Amino acid sequence: MQAEIITIGDELLIGQIVDTNSAWIGQKLNEIGIKVKQISSISDEREAILETLHAAIQRANLVIITGGLGPTKDDITKKTLAQFFEVGFKQDAGTLAQVKEIFSRYNAPLLPVNIAQADVPENCTVLPNKNGTAPGMWFELDEQVIVSLPGVPFEMKYLMEEEVLPKLNTYFKLPHIVHHTMLTAGIGESFLAEKISSVEDILPNYIKLAYLPKLGQVRLRLSAYGNDRKALELEVQSISNQIQKLISDYFICDSDTPLEKVILDFMESRNLTLAIAESCTGGYLAHQFTQHPGCSTVFSGSAVAYSYDMKESMLGVKHATLTEHGAVSAEVVEEMARGAIERYESDYSISISGIAGPGGGMPEKPVGTVWIGVANKAKTISKKFQFGSKRRENIERSAASALMMLHKLLKEDYA
Amino acid sequence: MQAEIITIGDELLIGQIVDTNSAWIGQKLNEIGIKVKQISSISDEREAILETLHAAIQRANLVIITGGLGPTKDDITKKTLAQFFEVGFKQDAGTLAQVKEIFSRYNAPLLPVNIAQADVPENCTVLPNKNGTAPGMWFELDEQVIVSLPGVPFEMKYLMEEEVLPKLNTYFKLPHIVHHTMLTAGIGESFLAEKISSVEDILPNYIKLAYLPKLGQVRLRLSAYGNDRKALELEVQSISNQIQKLISDYFICDSDTPLEKVILDFMESRNLTLAIAESCTGGYLAHQFTQHPGCSTVFSGSAVAYSYDMKESMLGVKHATLTEHGAVSAEVVEEMARGAIERYESDYSISISGIAGPGGGMPEKPVGTVWIGVANKAKTISKKFQFGSKRRENIERSAASALMMLHKLLKEDYA
Repeated sequence: MQAEIITIGDELLIGQIVDTNSAWIGQKLNEIGIKVKQISSISDEREAILETLHAAIQRANLVIITGGLGPTKDDITKKTLAQFFEVGFKQDAGTLAQVKEIFSRYNAPLLPVNIAQADVPENCTVLPNKNGTAPGMWFELDEQVIVSLPGVPFEMKYLMEEEVLPKLNTYFKLPHIVHHTMLTAGIGESFLAEKISSVEDILPNYIKLAYLPKLGQVRLRLSAYGNDRKALELEVQSISNQIQKLISDYFICDSDTPLEKVILDFMESRNLTLAIAESCTGGYLAHQFTQHPGCSTVFSGSAVAYSYDMKESMLGVKHATLTEHGAVSAEVVEEMARGAIERYESDYSISISGIAGPGGGMPEKPVGTVWIGVANKAKTISKKFQFGSKRRENIERSAASALMMLHKLLKEDYA
Repeated sequence: MQAEIITIGDELLIGQIVDTNSAWIGQKLNEIGIKVKQISSISDEREAILETLHAAIQRANLVIITGGLGPTKDDITKKTLAQFFEVGFKQDAGTLAQVKEIFSRYNAPLLPVNIAQADVPENCTVLPNKNGTAPGMWFELDEQVIVSLPGVPFEMKYLMEEEVLPKLNTYFKLPHIVHHTMLTAGIGESFLAEKISSVEDILPNYIKLAYLPKLGQVRLRLSAYGNDRKALELEVQSISNQIQKLISDYFICDSDTPLEKVILDFMESRNLTLAIAESCTGGYLAHQFTQHPGCSTVFSGSAVAYSYDMKESMLGVKHATLTEHGAVSAEVVEEMARGAIERYESDYSISISGIAGPGGGMPEKPVGTVWIGVANKAKTISKKFQFGSKRRENIERSAASALMMLHKLLKEDYA
């Protein structure tokens, strides 16, 4: 059972928008045992849509298309699908009612282009879109299915979860795919590979191992394909256990969990709290934690303090420390970390002060110089990092390194 | 001149990683006048790579491939490219020296798989990778070019900027593409289309208009194709001016600038400062501002205050206000906004308090209820929003709405 995803829109090809829909759809299809063979992003052009659709339907049993369903002139997916199937249009009463309801809710006049949103190719089954005016459309072709969804992520997600996934489950008889991911940190992928080669070399042909490196972390993903989910899960868990034994020093967790969530879970189970004092990462690290539901039991608060004044008033950093050592120094991040512990009455803290760039570099502290502190109630540890010249990367690497330092401290404290 | 991008890796197809490389490459190619026709994401499988490469090279003059160049067994791009060109391998001395240098810098033993990183197909020109061990590779085929780059974003970006783009500029005689983007807010795309139809209906066939909606904002993008860049720029600017006149109430700016950057620039030019007090957005809004270089002249600081205690101690919210009205209320966001102005000595402030979910909802304040405040030194405005049930979307919509409220206040103050 193979699927292809086609995302339509010039904005994807000129890079104005990153295609996040495909990754999300890929995840959801995998969970129900459908393997994505290819993702294609193409332009809002009739020929491109027809050619790509013809090629995809040769290779796959299922094609999911997103985008090009809006009311404006650049949206031609619906018209092109009708051409592909050589059918005319019908007006869908449910969609028309939904369009009218949305426009009356916003007290907005209904334009002809909005009413046309209810016109769909004759051969489709309409998938009602509660979050927008463009309906999803389900087409059947011999043993194959083509689904067309709006490109707006939250409309697409709603339709996938409420309509498409349940229908796929009943329409196709699906095999199983089991993915199992482990998170490691502090070791490069070739060293990991060397350490686990005794396991990797004898993997059966229906189990694949992939290395996914990112900012000092490597995720290892086992993927198993077959008909007996329970047996696959047991086999993959057994392989995972063997791998863990070989890399115990670098092993973080046995699931596809981001490091900050591992930390949140660890701290929550021990009733520990965390405060953050950020300078150059500017709220990014706090956001890493607070994006996760339920973080408030652990995360007590955070200060983004850019200037000397703010570091003094928000975190109690001493003026003399700032003027003697500069804001990017061991002394300052340590006082920031202690200030966060004391002022926000937390058990642990992280502090970051650095030069994210592109401006602000100095000969002795070039762009990319970052000091990071972590503290518990008894001690403070600080470390200097020298990252690169790109602001975004410096922010992300600072946050990733801070997470690794805190994870290490927690592991030592609760060994 | 058309290009295709092929990104290789199972992690893309199962959605473990979002393909951000393609968007970035698409942007860079467009800037030098190369139009991307298709982006394909495929598996680390020989047949998939060969089939996709054959199809792409039929349609495009340039194919850029990323991924599958690592040292581990799942990385097969290099071997498959040698098969595609029917050539053997040669060892590249420069790459070997670079690999050795990196490993000695980290004091790490050099494994055979690392040395093999220096083996490249005989017919390629090596593009030296200063940031990693996998070199970029440039292949010429009749009048066409195929480039293979590592999938790690910062290695790929380095190679594109330093090696690939300059070589493309000299190898191909390139036409021009001019993109011109306008940002609008507070109006839906079909109403925008209605308002500007007099301009859109008479666009010449070499100029396209696209609508890019996102969280209450719509970007309008004009794309013009031709040989005379200067003439295209003038024509597109003239069309943009006509459009602006038709939608002046909703027009934010005449460039592809995110709203928070528009605000930063506006405030910087008037020597104004901004402080932020966040609850449910947890640092996300501060990060929106601080991701931009030079934000520190405007952005004085921000507090993420989750609990009652933190709202009191960090922002001076009165205990009675919290207990009488609850943290998600007009009264509390107004005190948060005033607290931020006073404590962080800023000219403007934003405050946000809401229930991002999935937990924490109540009958009278369901998940998605968010109060947002904006203030200047003289006055405070607050507004209630009712978003949906998804945490990430509630965080993003809260931040987007806060930006629109601040932009409106600034426009009124400096009308």
